[in-house]
Amino acid sequence: MPETYYIIPKDKHDSLVTKAYLKRGYDVAEAAAGARFCASAAYYGIRTHNAIKALHLDELFGSKVGRWTPGAKIEKLPSRFAAAEIWNGHNKLGQAVAYEAMDTCMKLADKFGVGMVSVDNATHYLWGGGYVMDAALKGYLAYTNCTSATSEVVPFGGKTPTMGTNPHSWAFPTQDAIGFPIVIDWATSTIAMGRVQVMKREGKQLAPGCAVDAEGNPTTDPNKAVALLPFGAHKGYGLGLIDELYAGYIGGSLPQIRGTKLGGEGEKRGSTFYFQVIHPDAMKGNDYVKGRSQIQNVKAIIEDVLGHGNEKCMLPGQPEARWGGLSKQHGGLLFTKAEIEELNHLAHEVGEAAWNLADFKSVQV
Amino acid sequence: MPETYYIIPKDKHDSLVTKAYLKRGYDVAEAAAGARFCASAAYYGIRTHNAIKALHLDELFGSKVGRWTPGAKIEKLPSRFAAAEIWNGHNKLGQAVAYEAMDTCMKLADKFGVGMVSVDNATHYLWGGGYVMDAALKGYLAYTNCTSATSEVVPFGGKTPTMGTNPHSWAFPTQDAIGFPIVIDWATSTIAMGRVQVMKREGKQLAPGCAVDAEGNPTTDPNKAVALLPFGAHKGYGLGLIDELYAGYIGGSLPQIRGTKLGGEGEKRGSTFYFQVIHPDAMKGNDYVKGRSQIQNVKAIIEDVLGHGNEKCMLPGQPEARWGGLSKQHGGLLFTKAEIEELNHLAHEVGEAAWNLADFKSVQV
Repeated sequence: MPETYYIIPKDKHDSLVTKAYLKRGYDVAEAAAGARFCASAAYYGIRTHNAIKALHLDELFGSKVGRWTPGAKIEKLPSRFAAAEIWNGHNKLGQAVAYEAMDTCMKLADKFGVGMVSVDNATHYLWGGGYVMDAALKGYLAYTNCTSATSEVVPFGGKTPTMGTNPHSWAFPTQDAIGFPIVIDWATSTIAMGRVQVMKREGKQLAPGCAVDAEGNPTTDPNKAVALLPFGAHKGYGLGLIDELYAGYIGGSLPQIRGTKLGGEGEKRGSTFYFQVIHPDAMKGNDYVKGRSQIQNVKAIIEDVLGHGNEKCMLPGQPEARWGGLSKQHGGLLFTKAEIEELNHLAHEVGEAAWNLADFKSVQV
Repeated sequence: MPETYYIIPKDKHDSLVTKAYLKRGYDVAEAAAGARFCASAAYYGIRTHNAIKALHLDELFGSKVGRWTPGAKIEKLPSRFAAAEIWNGHNKLGQAVAYEAMDTCMKLADKFGVGMVSVDNATHYLWGGGYVMDAALKGYLAYTNCTSATSEVVPFGGKTPTMGTNPHSWAFPTQDAIGFPIVIDWATSTIAMGRVQVMKREGKQLAPGCAVDAEGNPTTDPNKAVALLPFGAHKGYGLGLIDELYAGYIGGSLPQIRGTKLGGEGEKRGSTFYFQVIHPDAMKGNDYVKGRSQIQNVKAIIEDVLGHGNEKCMLPGQPEARWGGLSKQHGGLLFTKAEIEELNHLAHEVGEAAWNLADFKSVQV
């Protein structure tokens, strides 16, 4: 059923979000990165990670509880490796760190073909897909992973959540081939804990293989579900473990207590980020058949995958591209009434007048 | 139920495999790489990708059908990128190319922190886990992907197999932390086609979500299954797509006809390989708590994941490590009677006397 969305001018959105970050003590550059990120999430329809979530996370884990440090400076550690930087984020706002890291990776990739930035003492960057999509739109293959703020996932064959939902995000600069970048971006749990809560509210059962109860037994009852299972059994478990291992090498701490206040005296509570960019020329074999260019070759392969009766398949990144098309078409960021009510809490926080629905055009989507 | 394994001295195994490759026209270095790989697969219990499979693939797709080129020279393309090499494999034996590529990646990682090699006109490297494990045992984080020889996987939401089972392999140098390298290594299909054939032979049903019939409808009947589904729905589909996209950028051709003889005039039939290595010092944040070293930090995290009631969980790479322990303990490579009969076909091919079971010690595993 179509829903009503109100079209918020991007400037108006960015102004509010910037003020909210400034109000919480973040510096101008951090607030700008925060606003840029939230606008990007809204533009591409990532409603789970827009301004509402970003500022709410800052309350739960961030500046409001003294765990994220407004105005912190990134410390770039000395490194003997030309294509790899190692940063101590000193709990600086994740979006600011992530954008700068991705910019650095692109510069390294321009020079070396591949570049990477590892970030210790990181906070939360919200939607990894946004950073890799951004790099893809600039022409690069990009990848990021991070450890989640808390640990909600049970290792395959286990009972207790000792791993994060640990996302991976990859993007490919396919916009010249198919009109948008392919963005493969998901958590390594079968579903999100937010989904469990929705099902609980709606009185519905979970699919098998999503969650376990307090005893670590599989359950489809959202009222009993206390922890999540990795997607794809041992395969998703391995993918989630990758993030924990990256964190281990970088400097992260015990996953079971990550994001908590309890136990683990002397352990860190933060996450780690890892970013990597590849220049497409650095993998250009130049032996494409039928006189195809590199991007024409990529296009031919995508069309082959989605041909032969597979025309109805979606490509990863396609929903984001569709929503971005709507945002472009309507000349603003699309928010529901309920979302605008949430944003008005931010308006109140920064001492701005509440937004009035009647002031915005609306559209049914 | 325990099975009887015969302990084959590694020298005897390597001699036979080397002769088989030489007999098929491969040069001395290729034959040595082929033997090294097969010994490694057998040593770590990768029975699906030992000498029997390696030489059988060479019959199906390789030198016997004129698609792999014994003695081919790797052409290293000029590249303006210091940390990335691009190779034209000219259909050289995959194991020889993969070992050399991984060696190159390690040298690049020593210098730049991260290094990568992309290989166009590649053949088949059999077990990606072997190459990344090898690099991990030398102290590096390693990754590889490749497109499979043929396309057996239906994109999520589709009907027709237009993607390979497209594996990903990651390894981490965790041996000093937990005694063995963690090796995360699997195909992006839920199961292998070989597994479908086993279930057919045994008259058993497949689990839901593994396969589709000729009309593209999901089936649990192995007699009707003609193509595979990606693991984890859209998530595994995305992972399989990554390999196709890498191939697209490198120079691979249409996936649906890969490995076939039919249609696609002017298209390539081969695969592509991608290799990447990271030096652990290039992600060393040096802010490990409690005075831990990097590897002690990794160890603490792994112990935390596998603690708290998760003690029975396996780590990826653990089965390989266990089998490697058996091989070491018994001082040779463990093969069953049926496998030795298969190896005797190779002995016959190279004009060597068949192996006699009575000549080998045996062990129940």
